[in-house]
Amino acid sequence: MRTVTYGAACSLDGFITGPDGQLDWLHFSKDVNAIIRDYWKTIDTLVMGRKTWEVAASQGGGASTNGVTSYVFSRTLDKITANGVFLVKEDAGEFIRRLKQQSGKDICVFGGGDFARSLFAAGVIDELGFNMHPVLLGSGTPLFTDSGRRIPLELKECRVLDGGCLYATYRVLPQD
Amino acid sequence: MRTVTYGAACSLDGFITGPDGQLDWLHFSKDVNAIIRDYWKTIDTLVMGRKTWEVAASQGGGASTNGVTSYVFSRTLDKITANGVFLVKEDAGEFIRRLKQQSGKDICVFGGGDFARSLFAAGVIDELGFNMHPVLLGSGTPLFTDSGRRIPLELKECRVLDGGCLYATYRVLPQD
Repeated sequence: MRTVTYGAACSLDGFITGPDGQLDWLHFSKDVNAIIRDYWKTIDTLVMGRKTWEVAASQGGGASTNGVTSYVFSRTLDKITANGVFLVKEDAGEFIRRLKQQSGKDICVFGGGDFARSLFAAGVIDELGFNMHPVLLGSGTPLFTDSGRRIPLELKECRVLDGGCLYATYRVLPQD
Repeated sequence: MRTVTYGAACSLDGFITGPDGQLDWLHFSKDVNAIIRDYWKTIDTLVMGRKTWEVAASQGGGASTNGVTSYVFSRTLDKITANGVFLVKEDAGEFIRRLKQQSGKDICVFGGGDFARSLFAAGVIDELGFNMHPVLLGSGTPLFTDSGRRIPLELKECRVLDGGCLYATYRVLPQD
């Protein structure tokens, strides 16, 4: 079955942007580039919520490339015309559960905590991967929001990257 | 000058208790015991807010032992009668700034995010130390609350402990 991974660069206090959407705290390095490049080879599908889509589209990242298909989940958007990007109006958990059964490479959950929360609640996320930066942002877009239940994890890997960033990956364990 | 450290065991999503104060997710091990024992040798002072004091006192941890002095910061408490525990009604940041100038061992910030936030805002915290457990609690007592500003950190150490816990320590850097 295809693995669904939720991953992001985040601050130590769990934000993926600063209070006004700031990303200037992100530290890029050879380490990070290698991780992203290797990860990108394992996936062929992105799933995201409306807010992440709107940010990506406004920054010119609207069209999928390199054979990657994107699914944007929204009940309010009317249509999306970008190449390789599909609007899905049905329940994200159910849709992704079916998608996992299909053949293909792995699936990446793209973007912020609200959309990820609904997928945690639906139990469709298999793995987590974070690049935790050495900074407290105080507020911003949260990495995690309350899915209403406790989710046990298993650490797969942890290593220190350039700039004092911590790269950690986890497996989501079956819930009690 | 005496070092002020804020440290705790926390979940990956940044809570130090579950939604109803649960601590059953804490994983104890030889690793953790050794870290606590070694750290305890470096301090002689605990500082905490009223809420943490009330939890500690209710669990029989009210009296300081082994030559450790505790300061509880509260404007609403009338008095504290426990041995070695002192009620401080003045501003915590100012008080701790003076305390750091005095001779003695290091100082531990004990407890939750609300009190730590006021100390981050006052700029008196020097180091952080976390034992990040592989679990998402969803809600509970937060490790961090918004101090109103970005706080840059420097990673000192990171290692994987028994049970897939990540132990990471940071130095608080001067702010922009």
